[in-house]
Amino acid sequence: MSGSPGTSSETKKPSWSASEAGALLDAEVIGDGSARFGTLSSLEGAGPDALTFVRSAKFARGWDESGAAAVLVSRAVYEDPSVGMEPGEGRAILVVEDADLAMLALLEAASKAIERTPRAGVHPSAAIDESATIGDGVFIGAHVTVGAGSAIGDRTRLHPGVRVGAGVRIGADSDLRSNVVIEDRCVLGERVLVHPGTVIGADGFGYRPSPDGGGVLKIPHIGGVEIGDDVEIGANSCIDRGKFSDTMIGSGTKIDNLVQVGHNVRIGRSCIVCGMTGIAGSATLGNGVTLGGGCRIHDGITIGDGATLAAVSGVMGDVPPGVTWGGTPAGPARDFLRQMACLRHLPELVREHRSHERATGKRGEGEA
Amino acid sequence: MSGSPGTSSETKKPSWSASEAGALLDAEVIGDGSARFGTLSSLEGAGPDALTFVRSAKFARGWDESGAAAVLVSRAVYEDPSVGMEPGEGRAILVVEDADLAMLALLEAASKAIERTPRAGVHPSAAIDESATIGDGVFIGAHVTVGAGSAIGDRTRLHPGVRVGAGVRIGADSDLRSNVVIEDRCVLGERVLVHPGTVIGADGFGYRPSPDGGGVLKIPHIGGVEIGDDVEIGANSCIDRGKFSDTMIGSGTKIDNLVQVGHNVRIGRSCIVCGMTGIAGSATLGNGVTLGGGCRIHDGITIGDGATLAAVSGVMGDVPPGVTWGGTPAGPARDFLRQMACLRHLPELVREHRSHERATGKRGEGEA
Amino acid sequence: MSGSPGTSSETKKPSWSASEAGALLDAEVIGDGSARFGTLSSLEGAGPDALTFVRSAKFARGWDESGAAAVLVSRAVYEDPSVGMEPGEGRAILVVEDADLAMLALLEAASKAIERTPRAGVHPSAAIDESATIGDGVFIGAHVTVGAGSAIGDRTRLHPGVRVGAGVRIGADSDLRSNVVIEDRCVLGERVLVHPGTVIGADGFGYRPSPDGGGVLKIPHIGGVEIGDDVEIGANSCIDRGKFSDTMIGSGTKIDNLVQVGHNVRIGRSCIVCGMTGIAGSATLGNGVTLGGGCRIHDGITIGDGATLAAVSGVMGDVPPGVTWGGTPAGPARDFLRQMACLRHLPELVREHRSHERATGKRGEGEA
Repeated sequence: MSGSPGTSSETKKPSWSASEAGALLDAEVIGDGSARFGTLSSLEGAGPDALTFVRSAKFARGWDESGAAAVLVSRAVYEDPSVGMEPGEGRAILVVEDADLAMLALLEAASKAIERTPRAGVHPSAAIDESATIGDGVFIGAHVTVGAGSAIGDRTRLHPGVRVGAGVRIGADSDLRSNVVIEDRCVLGERVLVHPGTVIGADGFGYRPSPDGGGVLKIPHIGGVEIGDDVEIGANSCIDRGKFSDTMIGSGTKIDNLVQVGHNVRIGRSCIVCGMTGIAGSATLGNGVTLGGGCRIHDGITIGDGATLAAVSGVMGDVPPGVTWGGTPAGPARDFLRQMACLRHLPELVREHRSHERATGKRGEGEA
Repeated sequence: MSGSPGTSSETKKPSWSASEAGALLDAEVIGDGSARFGTLSSLEGAGPDALTFVRSAKFARGWDESGAAAVLVSRAVYEDPSVGMEPGEGRAILVVEDADLAMLALLEAASKAIERTPRAGVHPSAAIDESATIGDGVFIGAHVTVGAGSAIGDRTRLHPGVRVGAGVRIGADSDLRSNVVIEDRCVLGERVLVHPGTVIGADGFGYRPSPDGGGVLKIPHIGGVEIGDDVEIGANSCIDRGKFSDTMIGSGTKIDNLVQVGHNVRIGRSCIVCGMTGIAGSATLGNGVTLGGGCRIHDGITIGDGATLAAVSGVMGDVPPGVTWGGTPAGPARDFLRQMACLRHLPELVREHRSHERATGKRGEGEA
Repeated sequence: MSGSPGTSSETKKPSWSASEAGALLDAEVIGDGSARFGTLSSLEGAGPDALTFVRSAKFARGWDESGAAAVLVSRAVYEDPSVGMEPGEGRAILVVEDADLAMLALLEAASKAIERTPRAGVHPSAAIDESATIGDGVFIGAHVTVGAGSAIGDRTRLHPGVRVGAGVRIGADSDLRSNVVIEDRCVLGERVLVHPGTVIGADGFGYRPSPDGGGVLKIPHIGGVEIGDDVEIGANSCIDRGKFSDTMIGSGTKIDNLVQVGHNVRIGRSCIVCGMTGIAGSATLGNGVTLGGGCRIHDGITIGDGATLAAVSGVMGDVPPGVTWGGTPAGPARDFLRQMACLRHLPELVREHRSHERATGKRGEGEA
């Protein structure tokens, strides 16, 4: 596996010959082992610089029409008698046990080849409070701030512009991308990845009526945020701090971009929360819960272990474990889709109903 | 009321004995005045380090089963003949006039004890234009920028990474958290609190058709944003500048995270805007309006004083003062909930209707 | 056209006399040419410092009641025999061919007069990697970072706190506002304007089941983001990088605040994407597509050239070119509005249906 030459190699995508990729993937190479590719692409739209893949026999024909340099194919498909793939001039077929896994292996190899791995050290422009504790091998980029009494675990990376408040603890091997903000007294585990612009530990949204009746007064939020290990949080999301106990996110949970997690929410382990979802205060998600994009979870409700909510669900009551629900208010997903499909018949029903009423003289006077 | 000892006290939660808390809250202490707690918790889940609270007689029994160190209870509940609460070994009951208010008083005391209060002064890494005016007792953190001609009021705090453009005015005692951006010529009042990552004064989203028919041209936005006193804005929200007049947010209004306020919107005094709500351009909210989470307010509409919109409402027309509405398009909330509840009957109605039509031979030819 | 005097002129709004504006707009000035205005306003709410405008004969009467200093009016309206506008004491009428275009011309002139035009140069606090290439006339503000191998085009402006990763290319005359983050290897064209806090190139949200069944593993994202010329992106939006090929945004496309664009999305030329819209992974938008605010576009779907989706649409399947659709699931907008309007009749239909069933004895035993 060879990167491009020269000093800028870290910023270029790598390129492989079919033989190099074959060795990496333990593949049988059929055709021209010197065929080179620098990108991975689905069959449609694959250019002469691409490695493509064929997942099932019915798409194998696409390889002939494709201009790709090489193709990954699972052995079962390649050996299917109905298929008969040929490499063609200057191209190569890579036969592997499982084309999906091989593609992932290539992606991971490519990622390692091009990934920026910042060197350990603290940029001179960073402002680190003298009472903070910085672990071994930590990278702290330009214009980062770390507040009083905070502790940064070994090998953790704080990219440029990250703001770590006072009394924060971040575990080892975590990665906070540019301009992430961690407010005071929040706790992050190990191998936590937070994408740019995300804010962890802003005050929850809580007020009480002003005694003079003239508006509201802020309720202080002295709880924190506690995030487990192996959590990933997307860009420009917000995880609010708790009122007195902590907002909690369990290990292995993955949260997408522009997601709102309210004060005192408790999210279990290995949950998936897709983009633009909002989880209101004090809601509880069990383990292994999946929320599609754009969901709205009302405050205080509970979602059971392993439940899945379809995109754009409005969850207004508790959800049992293991179900697949959707809609607003959320219910069994199949029912919801059927109801939505029936909506287009509603105008006809209303028309019919009115004409029936007119015919039978039932219609009330005041109605339009 | 004692904080933890030593230099790191500002980053730890405080702890109290029941006697200390009793003195603070003017409570009658029954049982062991030396019982200590460091957190506040509801009855369920209260550990031995917690103060808990009992709001009504029917939950008073929970205190016996709870492991909490102490409990706050309103006198009316404590003296209810059906209740009979006992402190138990090493625990304490704090009897107060109003347990809710006492809890808030404790939260506020705890908040003061742990709150980071940055010292006045300008961090040497900040870049302050020499034509800017900085009031007395101002805190300006690391890597802050303040542009030409801007004025920062007395005791206002600009946390690390805050960007203040040119010609901005910020009143006294305001608090801009890390990485907040205030664009040119915006005006903020006194005691305004803005959470991290929020952007005030980006251009509104306005274009006109290109004369050559090939897309659109940007309409300049020379208006600003004018924010009153005692306003709080959550994290990663956006308040766009006006086209020629200003976008306005009235005093006492509270806005949550990830909220969008479009150009030339006018929001009155003491409004509550919950998370992920979007208010499109030139909409007008009166005073005391409440918008639940995830609402969509269309451009140009007017919402009357004191109106409440349920979460996830889609407001497509004007809303009268004082009403409680919901749904999309928004209407009286009760009607909306009834309509939603009826949706589950719709497939049955459609089935019935079709079989009736088939029986009576009414069904048109072209229909599925 | 005169700005205010002195060094702070760049931060004040300009003011004009009617004569100055008349010369700028090639207008006939009727009345007092010395009448001054410093703001532009619609008829209602126009104060004595305002220039207002009259678009049609039926609103011309409003000028008499208005306190505005001057009014823009199209010649056709002014000369309409039914109109008869008089300047009045100390006020002026500016007669132009097209009042709308004249207003835009004034806005543009005002914008130029007050616009902050930062001087070319690199602030000493910026951290620019020595292998980066910086074009002529570039402005780089305080606390900016530019990573290894990146190239910044001529006259491009990077405002304070902007983070440019490694291997990034940004074309000429682009403008990245404060705290924008561009992750590694992304490419932006010429005249691209990005508002504060927006994140371009965060990892897409992609995982695969862990082989041990205990959660999910991250799929590396080695693709980038490629943005054409003349694109504008609002504040706190997110454009994720592709898995292996790039996420693409065509020239002339305008994207509003708090918008999410998922990995491998392809957006064509001259599209309009309003605020808080989410476009899930691998969706494709043709050229000239308009998405209203708060839309949800499901992954992998295709929207044809010139299609328009109403605000808050949930797009779950492909959309043909040129149509205007709305609703969830999205369909022809007119149908959707009719269905929504019929919803209020649904409770009545259900009631009727039940009483009919009860009368005819059809109602099943198990039903409520």
